[in-house]
Amino acid sequence: MSAAAYEYEYFKVSFPAEYVALVVIDRPGKLNAFLEVMWLNLRQIFRQLSHDPDVRCVVLTGAGDRAFTAGLDVQAAAADGAITGAGRGDVARAAAKIRRHILEFQDCITAIEKCEKPVITVLHGISYGLALDICLASDIRLCTSGTRFSIKEVDIGLAADIGTLSRLPHSGLPLSWVKDVCLTAREFNGQEAIAVGLVSGCFENKEVAVEKAVGMARVIGRKSPVAVQGTKEVINHSRGRTVEEGLNYVAVWNAAMLQTKDVKDAMLAGLQKRKPTFEKM
Amino acid sequence: MSAAAYEYEYFKVSFPAEYVALVVIDRPGKLNAFLEVMWLNLRQIFRQLSHDPDVRCVVLTGAGDRAFTAGLDVQAAAADGAITGAGRGDVARAAAKIRRHILEFQDCITAIEKCEKPVITVLHGISYGLALDICLASDIRLCTSGTRFSIKEVDIGLAADIGTLSRLPHSGLPLSWVKDVCLTAREFNGQEAIAVGLVSGCFENKEVAVEKAVGMARVIGRKSPVAVQGTKEVINHSRGRTVEEGLNYVAVWNAAMLQTKDVKDAMLAGLQKRKPTFEKM
Amino acid sequence: MSAAAYEYEYFKVSFPAEYVALVVIDRPGKLNAFLEVMWLNLRQIFRQLSHDPDVRCVVLTGAGDRAFTAGLDVQAAAADGAITGAGRGDVARAAAKIRRHILEFQDCITAIEKCEKPVITVLHGISYGLALDICLASDIRLCTSGTRFSIKEVDIGLAADIGTLSRLPHSGLPLSWVKDVCLTAREFNGQEAIAVGLVSGCFENKEVAVEKAVGMARVIGRKSPVAVQGTKEVINHSRGRTVEEGLNYVAVWNAAMLQTKDVKDAMLAGLQKRKPTFEKM
Amino acid sequence: MSAAAYEYEYFKVSFPAEYVALVVIDRPGKLNAFLEVMWLNLRQIFRQLSHDPDVRCVVLTGAGDRAFTAGLDVQAAAADGAITGAGRGDVARAAAKIRRHILEFQDCITAIEKCEKPVITVLHGISYGLALDICLASDIRLCTSGTRFSIKEVDIGLAADIGTLSRLPHSGLPLSWVKDVCLTAREFNGQEAIAVGLVSGCFENKEVAVEKAVGMARVIGRKSPVAVQGTKEVINHSRGRTVEEGLNYVAVWNAAMLQTKDVKDAMLAGLQKRKPTFEKM
Amino acid sequence: MSAAAYEYEYFKVSFPAEYVALVVIDRPGKLNAFLEVMWLNLRQIFRQLSHDPDVRCVVLTGAGDRAFTAGLDVQAAAADGAITGAGRGDVARAAAKIRRHILEFQDCITAIEKCEKPVITVLHGISYGLALDICLASDIRLCTSGTRFSIKEVDIGLAADIGTLSRLPHSGLPLSWVKDVCLTAREFNGQEAIAVGLVSGCFENKEVAVEKAVGMARVIGRKSPVAVQGTKEVINHSRGRTVEEGLNYVAVWNAAMLQTKDVKDAMLAGLQKRKPTFEKM
Amino acid sequence: MSAAAYEYEYFKVSFPAEYVALVVIDRPGKLNAFLEVMWLNLRQIFRQLSHDPDVRCVVLTGAGDRAFTAGLDVQAAAADGAITGAGRGDVARAAAKIRRHILEFQDCITAIEKCEKPVITVLHGISYGLALDICLASDIRLCTSGTRFSIKEVDIGLAADIGTLSRLPHSGLPLSWVKDVCLTAREFNGQEAIAVGLVSGCFENKEVAVEKAVGMARVIGRKSPVAVQGTKEVINHSRGRTVEEGLNYVAVWNAAMLQTKDVKDAMLAGLQKRKPTFEKM
Repeated sequence: MSAAAYEYEYFKVSFPAEYVALVVIDRPGKLNAFLEVMWLNLRQIFRQLSHDPDVRCVVLTGAGDRAFTAGLDVQAAAADGAITGAGRGDVARAAAKIRRHILEFQDCITAIEKCEKPVITVLHGISYGLALDICLASDIRLCTSGTRFSIKEVDIGLAADIGTLSRLPHSGLPLSWVKDVCLTAREFNGQEAIAVGLVSGCFENKEVAVEKAVGMARVIGRKSPVAVQGTKEVINHSRGRTVEEGLNYVAVWNAAMLQTKDVKDAMLAGLQKRKPTFEKM
Repeated sequence: MSAAAYEYEYFKVSFPAEYVALVVIDRPGKLNAFLEVMWLNLRQIFRQLSHDPDVRCVVLTGAGDRAFTAGLDVQAAAADGAITGAGRGDVARAAAKIRRHILEFQDCITAIEKCEKPVITVLHGISYGLALDICLASDIRLCTSGTRFSIKEVDIGLAADIGTLSRLPHSGLPLSWVKDVCLTAREFNGQEAIAVGLVSGCFENKEVAVEKAVGMARVIGRKSPVAVQGTKEVINHSRGRTVEEGLNYVAVWNAAMLQTKDVKDAMLAGLQKRKPTFEKM
Repeated sequence: MSAAAYEYEYFKVSFPAEYVALVVIDRPGKLNAFLEVMWLNLRQIFRQLSHDPDVRCVVLTGAGDRAFTAGLDVQAAAADGAITGAGRGDVARAAAKIRRHILEFQDCITAIEKCEKPVITVLHGISYGLALDICLASDIRLCTSGTRFSIKEVDIGLAADIGTLSRLPHSGLPLSWVKDVCLTAREFNGQEAIAVGLVSGCFENKEVAVEKAVGMARVIGRKSPVAVQGTKEVINHSRGRTVEEGLNYVAVWNAAMLQTKDVKDAMLAGLQKRKPTFEKM
Repeated sequence: MSAAAYEYEYFKVSFPAEYVALVVIDRPGKLNAFLEVMWLNLRQIFRQLSHDPDVRCVVLTGAGDRAFTAGLDVQAAAADGAITGAGRGDVARAAAKIRRHILEFQDCITAIEKCEKPVITVLHGISYGLALDICLASDIRLCTSGTRFSIKEVDIGLAADIGTLSRLPHSGLPLSWVKDVCLTAREFNGQEAIAVGLVSGCFENKEVAVEKAVGMARVIGRKSPVAVQGTKEVINHSRGRTVEEGLNYVAVWNAAMLQTKDVKDAMLAGLQKRKPTFEKM
Repeated sequence: MSAAAYEYEYFKVSFPAEYVALVVIDRPGKLNAFLEVMWLNLRQIFRQLSHDPDVRCVVLTGAGDRAFTAGLDVQAAAADGAITGAGRGDVARAAAKIRRHILEFQDCITAIEKCEKPVITVLHGISYGLALDICLASDIRLCTSGTRFSIKEVDIGLAADIGTLSRLPHSGLPLSWVKDVCLTAREFNGQEAIAVGLVSGCFENKEVAVEKAVGMARVIGRKSPVAVQGTKEVINHSRGRTVEEGLNYVAVWNAAMLQTKDVKDAMLAGLQKRKPTFEKM
Repeated sequence: MSAAAYEYEYFKVSFPAEYVALVVIDRPGKLNAFLEVMWLNLRQIFRQLSHDPDVRCVVLTGAGDRAFTAGLDVQAAAADGAITGAGRGDVARAAAKIRRHILEFQDCITAIEKCEKPVITVLHGISYGLALDICLASDIRLCTSGTRFSIKEVDIGLAADIGTLSRLPHSGLPLSWVKDVCLTAREFNGQEAIAVGLVSGCFENKEVAVEKAVGMARVIGRKSPVAVQGTKEVINHSRGRTVEEGLNYVAVWNAAMLQTKDVKDAMLAGLQKRKPTFEKM
């Protein structure tokens, strides 16, 4: 597939290296704030990428210098009552509609996690609210030192419900710090993010960070896609399950996957001291 | 409610700021070591605070300069056979009684976790055994650099059973370090505690630490209580469950909670560039 | 039991201190790479140690200067088709055999985790692939600054299936970093390992690290074995389960264990200001 | 303890046989419909019975000929707004209060399940709504052929939330039938109840049924209380957990419990062909 | 919405009573065997019904006298390699595609379970393979005495993977019988189905069974939709989870749902001895 | 493999039909009561059968007319202190040893469940205690009308810990009945067993029952072993897990298994209206 297959108003998709896709949130005039159409499109893009044999790793970033994303476009959401279920009948009927809406919204962001290929998110500038939901659904997080992170939801009166609170306790971060930033909505920067482990790389500016991400994606893109996709799936599956469950799952998973030609190709290449190449997947 | 509603022999409860309660363990002559009546009262206090509409955030600390708490008052416990079930019939009957006793004791400490309002624990000086059970049941942990932490239980011949071992693996701390301090019972100080992430703030002395905690509590107290209480509940619920469970839970939770007036109030205040105020809860 | 009970071709077992066993992977000419017989023997050794009343803590390391282990001896494994199920009938039948093989292999490494006594692993030099599976199944990890860690599996075309991917998300390490090293197979050294928390001690060379490990094992060996073994079991059990499950489990566990004489012995020794000694277990 | 220790306005507690307690819901003029004080007292009674060494099995029934219970006294509940949170502030604040109320109510009924001694419920006449919550929290269910069962909740506009819907899927009843009676609120009688397995005994009238229940309780009361209480706990624990979890749990449980003198006593009595007697518990 | 909104080649959707939808699988010339387009459409239909405020209960049946459905149209599936992944590259790549295909297929059938409104399936004649997956995803199962059930999958060489094996152990049926019919693929009829509890009604012919189903749907359609939809969700959620999880979930669920006007309407109607009517949902 | 590979003192293994193994517990002089060596051998036998390509289904029964098995040989067990940990040091050390012993014993019986091939148990005569553990670990249960079942454990003072209490709540039997027979230890016969669903066939005598079982095993033996073994594994895995877990697991499982030649063979045979034959597994 080519970039032409990925035409969206608020996203730019390009292919900066073999097997690497670069997705850019593209509404810089509004600090890349999300309209409903945007998260619906985000899902569509990541579903496409998930099955696109020309893609093995994805980098996700935001357009412009000022923000990865300022989060949900709250004014737009308020206007159509999407958050609070305004004008939706009695409390129970409103609740049913709000729940449907949250589940749909979650499903769109979870598309990043379900994407069979690893996703590297590069954050910079303002990275509020939904920015966290998005980066926590991805696999590897990088940022710039000037990134202004904030789990902003308590400031607009709600508990973050698109994934931040469900994924943070499984992200290997100190829980006392997690509660601090979730309950106070205070800003923190890239240095703090790397110190606690929220990101695994922090760079001086966006250009360097994206370059680094694309480089990492290129490395991953040269590995066996069978190995890479299995690794993503098995790590994700192990969260919130016992070690026993995890072990049994990977045994069933690899019962098929080890029959791949990639193992033989990799071993042969190893013996011949050359880089292996792998079939599309 | 006023402080008068919270009169206990071994605890002092005050309200240093709007919506902020300060609970002090008050048995400094015995290094704040816990008698059975104390953990029973602790439960009662946190159940009251949980439903008290004048409280939105709680700070917990220990009286005196020497200790947050030296842990269980082992001599007193030994005297009444509470730990070892002495004089309780045959092994099975003693086991039944010990189990009841542990479950009751756990329930008292878990009252901190179940308190609907966030709890910030400030540790200083000797912080042994039960000190860890208590601070791990709370949401945010601060300490002084001179805090002397120790998971002391193996030194008196038992595996910590009031919560330390059940909560540590969900606290985002390196497991190798966790096993080290649990198996050796060695002391570690505030610097080490913040380096591994057990606490999220370490200050030069208790006064500064408590002041910092009250300040943080004041910040949290000004947020929407609907948002704050939901955030605490959803993060806690996500521990040890899959991401899917977490997402579904928060969707059901917010189906009611997003119908709060707080969201509209917060948004309106945002537009008007003023601080919102929220109804009691 | 004496060392004579632990005679294996590729392992040396000795007892450098009271209640401390030292297990050395001993195939230095091949960088301690694992043959099938080795992981079968590893299981046997740890099952013996688990029930050996003269052992209370185990240190595990690799012979020679160059490697803890280079991982699976891939050439040997390839020769007998163990990984890829070569020559095993149709895909489903091969899958059934591969699954059996993985489950058996996992079970051997899990013997370290199931060993009732704590295991301290000391890594040095090349520590690839299986090295991670092994050290993650142990309780405490120490290394040298020159250790060359790599989760090598994606380089040979497979998702790590002997425990690395199932245990890493429960090891309290930042998940973004975990995905980075699992997906890129890049090397990292002891400094990085201690910075993220994979190990809890990093020393200048193997001698110092082993000495440190034996010292720590000696400390653990002097504690009540009832307390130590319960602590290991309860922490491990709490991973991937809810806090409620953990609390209930430890209450049932300690219903028996608190009836030990060790508690009384420890308390009495405490009063008499001397070190307690404990019966074998 | 004697009956005097169990004095309640709406419950009669007697001891018709050694080790057997009989609890009667006693508000026959109102078809034994439940006021809030009643379910609070129910909890208190079952907590007392749980720890009362003179009790080994409990029979629970309703006073009068017409009803086991007609369920919640809806008029009384409506009057104080307990169900719908009337007059409780905005939706979120009302939701918080309703949730607290449900959890408290559930906890009272769950006291039957948590009672360490088996509970045999005898249903007769009108057995609506809460009648099901109660009997599903007990261990053994008997009824009369004239019992008029109905899971009545949908008829008053709500999903049953005190346990019926959480326990029915774990009660070994055909799920298609479960959904039928839960969604239609239709009445069914004793014959249908025994045919599907909701009850394990159906008798011509209440006297016979209670006599049968007391007889069964007497049989259970003569068994080892260690064995009986362990059996109840382990079966209940196994619901909704994997077989592996169940096996591990019972192994830890019995590690203490098999050290009871009861096993020896039972075996000795077996050899001597006499009935064993067991110590109180 | 009207029937016009539900136009599909292989399905007929009508509305035989207020709030009742009747969905008919309509490929009688091929024994209602499923093509891929059919299960995709089935998902679309049930998603529409789930949100259609004019629908409160759904009846699902098959056109013609001979079959509910003969299952998957295996010849068609074989032709495009959907089952076996023929021509899809190496084993691992084929496995990835087969897995995607199964997950998609499952998702379509699970749409019946996820439909917020109860679904009553009426089976008759040949009801093989997929017939079981479908009816197990629905809420209430009725059949005719002449229904010819068979869990046919082992006869074509595969373990049923669209839901039968995952849902049967949660359907309250004797597991020994479940294994018998799953492992032998033997036929069984309506009498056997009702005896074990797979169906909760068995009638002499399809007309009577459908009439009965529509009658039951009409009853359900007159209940509060808040109550009915909550009941379906909570029962389904409780399967495979502990009782504690179930209780907590329904408490959160009802925190919103009890604020419905339906409760007041139902109570008022009760007092006035008339049938309540409820708002659309 | 031939019968010669299966020589054990207390078991007879024969092959009455192609792909069918018949295992007979053979200590009729002692009512087939189990010594420790017997359950150790049972594990060995079922592990062999699990991997034996000439076996596709197993029938398990007891020698002689009087008993399937009277359960554990309690006198022998009492003599060596295996149950009660007599003479094993203090309570905690005894508990550790008892737990090891139970886990080992459980593992032996679980070997029946883990056997990749279905196991049909035929019970007759006295079927006490361990008889239930064994038959519940198997897949299909048949009996004679004269079978005398009893969950005997409470009569010797203990809660059944080898699987009965962990598997009964997942066996689709009415829980009220389960508690009745577990708590009273009362005998029940084949008619009652089939009425509640514990067995799925009840025959006039052992010969008929075994003949029936072998016939059923022969039918299963002619199916695709890939399909049969997958069906057993997936049903067992679904117990105690959510439907979502079950669906995901079978999708991964079948990703490999559907690539089998058996599907094509079965389809081709279907088209040619002949019985397919399948390769060994």
